Amino acid sequence: MNIKVIAFDADDTLWVNEPYFRQTEEQFCNLLASYAAQHELERELLKIEIDNLVLYGYGIKGFILSMIEAAMKITQKTLSIEVIQHIMELGKQMLNQPIELLDGVEEVLEALKGKYRLVVATKGDLLDQERKLKKSGLNHYFHHIEIMSEKDDANYLKLIKHLDIQPGELMMIGNSLKSDVMPVLNIGGHAVHVPYHITWAHEQIEHSVDNERFKSVERIKEILDFL
Amino acid sequence: MNIKVIAFDADDTLWVNEPYFRQTEEQFCNLLASYAAQHELERELLKIEIDNLVLYGYGIKGFILSMIEAAMKITQKTLSIEVIQHIMELGKQMLNQPIELLDGVEEVLEALKGKYRLVVATKGDLLDQERKLKKSGLNHYFHHIEIMSEKDDANYLKLIKHLDIQPGELMMIGNSLKSDVMPVLNIGGHAVHVPYHITWAHEQIEHSVDNERFKSVERIKEILDFL
Repeated sequence: MNIKVIAFDADDTLWVNEPYFRQTEEQFCNLLASYAAQHELERELLKIEIDNLVLYGYGIKGFILSMIEAAMKITQKTLSIEVIQHIMELGKQMLNQPIELLDGVEEVLEALKGKYRLVVATKGDLLDQERKLKKSGLNHYFHHIEIMSEKDDANYLKLIKHLDIQPGELMMIGNSLKSDVMPVLNIGGHAVHVPYHITWAHEQIEHSVDNERFKSVERIKEILDFL
Repeated sequence: MNIKVIAFDADDTLWVNEPYFRQTEEQFCNLLASYAAQHELERELLKIEIDNLVLYGYGIKGFILSMIEAAMKITQKTLSIEVIQHIMELGKQMLNQPIELLDGVEEVLEALKGKYRLVVATKGDLLDQERKLKKSGLNHYFHHIEIMSEKDDANYLKLIKHLDIQPGELMMIGNSLKSDVMPVLNIGGHAVHVPYHITWAHEQIEHSVDNERFKSVERIKEILDFL
């Protein structure tokens, strides 16, 4: 291995994220509990979120807009304006959420800094991710943030070009097999999977990965065993 | 001059943008015409947009959310759900808008390609800007897109570091004195102002710029006179 750049996914790799979406989804379901059962509300919201991905992309603002759209659809526009206001407030709360670092993250970054160029590679809004990085206190460990509109082969190739390295010089670390592992292996990079206990339905894939450039660890600290 | 990278602002420098916001704003005012006069509606919307910038950042999704918030405030929550649905549709229309290149842009890029590293440096959503770049057919001219959460001195310094060049090796070209010119001159870079006939109120500054690293041109084609 001749790794030059280690790229970290942010949400649910460096800090807690998905549970806040789940919490908000639950509050959304509570707001509309008189219209449909929770699993139906969840299914309708997920469907609208996925339909809107191509237009809104990832991140909290698109999520808020999708919740509003789902609420209008589910209630056949009979909901009250207060519900919409409530949804918008849930969104602002999410954007203002404090950062909760995942266990071992700071120790890992401290150990790797100076040895590798460390970057954050994430989907979502730049402003939102910059805000989180600032709040996290981890800013000084990273060379910069790479925002990718979609974590697919083509965009990882762009990332490689952008970082001015060879594919084999990149190691990506993240909690999503679909976004952080498979495309990186496809283009010839190294990838480490650090599972998180909750994964968004849209990110879930069933896979057993067999690749010499792949490793799976239970805790992020274990990456220090081979770096 | 030893320019290595030429960075182009995107909206209203490469293609038409602000007129679409104005158009949508006008439709927003029409929707709420029975509640207040146009200038009051515009003022309220602008106020809410600016208040939300720190949370939502730039771009269409934040604009949609701010329109919804403004509509609820202006009508004291007496508006109908149809109005909110209409606002959300206006937003989707904006996101689906075709790209209209500004005069001379393609000619300029054609003349500069190969001589300089060309990048797009813009605020707004990555997904949205990537979509526009793709639709514009200009993709192949650019090395990559730089998304900046705010175009200020600190972020231009990050950009320089990221591009791995000296400040004096950057030339920024754009329609906003506030975002594309002043901060670039502040950090020691070169800047060219290409005014556009409409500027968002929040971007307007009164300035006469006197700096040997600054030029102002009436049309983008004129930059070929000195590059």
